[in-house]
Amino acid sequence: MSPSRDSLVDALSMKGGTGEHSYATNSHYQRNVFYEIQPVVIENVREMLVEVSFPGCIKVADLGCSSGQNTFLAMSEIINTIIQSYQQKGENLPEMDCCLNDLPESDFNTTFNLVPSFLEKLKMEVKGRCFVSGVPNSFYSRLFPSKSLHFVHSSFSIHWLSKIPDGLENNTRSIHIKDPSPPNVFKSYLNQFKNDFSLFLKMRSEEMVPNGHMVLTFVGRKVSDPLYQDCFQVWSLLSDCLLDLVSEGVVKESDIESFNMPFYNPNEEDVREVILKEGSFEISKIETFDHIVPYKIKCIKEEKEEDQSLQMEVGKRQASWARCITEPLLVAHFGDAIIEPVFNKYAHYMAKYLCVSNHRPNMTLIIVVSLTRT
Amino acid sequence: MSPSRDSLVDALSMKGGTGEHSYATNSHYQRNVFYEIQPVVIENVREMLVEVSFPGCIKVADLGCSSGQNTFLAMSEIINTIIQSYQQKGENLPEMDCCLNDLPESDFNTTFNLVPSFLEKLKMEVKGRCFVSGVPNSFYSRLFPSKSLHFVHSSFSIHWLSKIPDGLENNTRSIHIKDPSPPNVFKSYLNQFKNDFSLFLKMRSEEMVPNGHMVLTFVGRKVSDPLYQDCFQVWSLLSDCLLDLVSEGVVKESDIESFNMPFYNPNEEDVREVILKEGSFEISKIETFDHIVPYKIKCIKEEKEEDQSLQMEVGKRQASWARCITEPLLVAHFGDAIIEPVFNKYAHYMAKYLCVSNHRPNMTLIIVVSLTRT
Repeated sequence: MSPSRDSLVDALSMKGGTGEHSYATNSHYQRNVFYEIQPVVIENVREMLVEVSFPGCIKVADLGCSSGQNTFLAMSEIINTIIQSYQQKGENLPEMDCCLNDLPESDFNTTFNLVPSFLEKLKMEVKGRCFVSGVPNSFYSRLFPSKSLHFVHSSFSIHWLSKIPDGLENNTRSIHIKDPSPPNVFKSYLNQFKNDFSLFLKMRSEEMVPNGHMVLTFVGRKVSDPLYQDCFQVWSLLSDCLLDLVSEGVVKESDIESFNMPFYNPNEEDVREVILKEGSFEISKIETFDHIVPYKIKCIKEEKEEDQSLQMEVGKRQASWARCITEPLLVAHFGDAIIEPVFNKYAHYMAKYLCVSNHRPNMTLIIVVSLTRT
Repeated sequence: MSPSRDSLVDALSMKGGTGEHSYATNSHYQRNVFYEIQPVVIENVREMLVEVSFPGCIKVADLGCSSGQNTFLAMSEIINTIIQSYQQKGENLPEMDCCLNDLPESDFNTTFNLVPSFLEKLKMEVKGRCFVSGVPNSFYSRLFPSKSLHFVHSSFSIHWLSKIPDGLENNTRSIHIKDPSPPNVFKSYLNQFKNDFSLFLKMRSEEMVPNGHMVLTFVGRKVSDPLYQDCFQVWSLLSDCLLDLVSEGVVKESDIESFNMPFYNPNEEDVREVILKEGSFEISKIETFDHIVPYKIKCIKEEKEEDQSLQMEVGKRQASWARCITEPLLVAHFGDAIIEPVFNKYAHYMAKYLCVSNHRPNMTLIIVVSLTRT
């Protein structure tokens, strides 16, 4: 096990297929967030249609599309908005080129099996005019020819870093930023995010036409101090589960010492700073959504606050969610034998956490950034 | 079992993955044919580079790419030819957009896992300039925006029809054209081929730029009479194996009565006629390669004509080849329980056939058509 840092990130993909533990089955949360930010996407598509001149074909990309039905949520909305806009103006529909991107290890087969029904839903009138392709590469590299993209969407992706940050050797008791962490840990994560996000913007700036629009949705945090009440509780709980397995002798201590999540949830200031410094895009708007985080379920408070079995049920559901976004990565580093025990523990910790979480503020939020290529 | 004719063709894909029976493992034959026709592809790419004016990005498509290493054979050759041509002229390299197409059910995951090494091989100098995408749809429909493609390649694909021809209800004792066949059978197959190939050309004509080039390689036959010595022996043998299973009670008679291969191997005249009638392309050249067909192995004649165990070995190899190109289709119609018995029988029949085949002429050949979009 314990492959190199680079090969670890090669394994960074959501759990494929359509089985019990797959991303396709467990990504309700991401779907719900999309429904909340949908008006932002629609507004940006409409603005783009006004500001951009077309060569006859509108090219749209969804970056970090993962697999399953969610993949087509944003793309459907974007395409429908384009169709409606053209129909309202009484103009002939343009051709539309829909590009779905994710890392080569992602499960494109599951996504591609849904393409016929996606095209079917676009109805007869669009027949032969909407083309779908998959682009298997990291969005921290060039994905498309120069000046070819009109609209870019990315949801729940750019909080994933291109690699595990350098200089985390002393972050031995945690897989992320967690109170207490050695002081350099936050700095390493922040630097990696700044470099990665800046590179992401540079690559897109080369690929997008002038006045092209981009909407990015990702997990952020409310405060500048990333140690404030463990700003991404999912990783703190996962750290605790792995440390338990170390003390039980199931996981080697050296394995957890060398493992860190390639993830950073920036605050609004981090995001704004990188965009301004990179300079290719104008910020139309940065919005934040204080969305129900997956480990804080309303129904518990509203219906049966004391019901432990319900809390356990929700704990299990949250464990499934954490599992579908981390399993390939954990398997690549620790092997597959740890997956069941880790997420059994995770469900229990989460159930306990739910007892107290209603009295704690939610430290994460969803950040939605609307950008225009200048 | 026995799904409708349309859903049957939905299952038309080569066997995915990289296992023992996969297309990736068993497609040496297709690879060898490519090496033989490689000069034709290179010549056509060079001609295209002379005749076409570029907007900065050259877009190339491989249609019916299947999965595994073979997928990148033609694409590598095409891209390398472009690079060399530009380097010889001392000009800056253009961007290159490589599109890999197959049906949505194909195993794109196996192909996409090979994309990083494909890009790696293109060396540092091309870094960031070559983009790879997968296009999951039938090539009997539009796949790409209008006038976007510069070069199209398709190998071992367009002998596969878009559907099982209509009117084959009386073709009860065979899964294809086989002596004896009811007289309408050949006509049904020929009509379906003409319609499909014509549609293929029409779709490509809309997608390609003026003077764009296309090279199509497929299985053809030498004679006009398709009954002459069972012009595609692979299906005759497969018919015999399935009929054996009917007589053994393993396969229902009605299942074989309703099953026909969506395959047609045209002769040169069929091909020429459709291209001329469709009218969008000029034939630069039609070449035929009387290639070693997979069921006729030189080594048997040369080394040990009498060695039955060697013949059985070759029989098994040919059964693996026939299996990797038909398994998903057979499973969709007959269920997966028949696969092992069918191909065990197939290996035995093939071994027997090899004893006599050296005294029979080879009735199939590879047809390579070079076309220019007028």
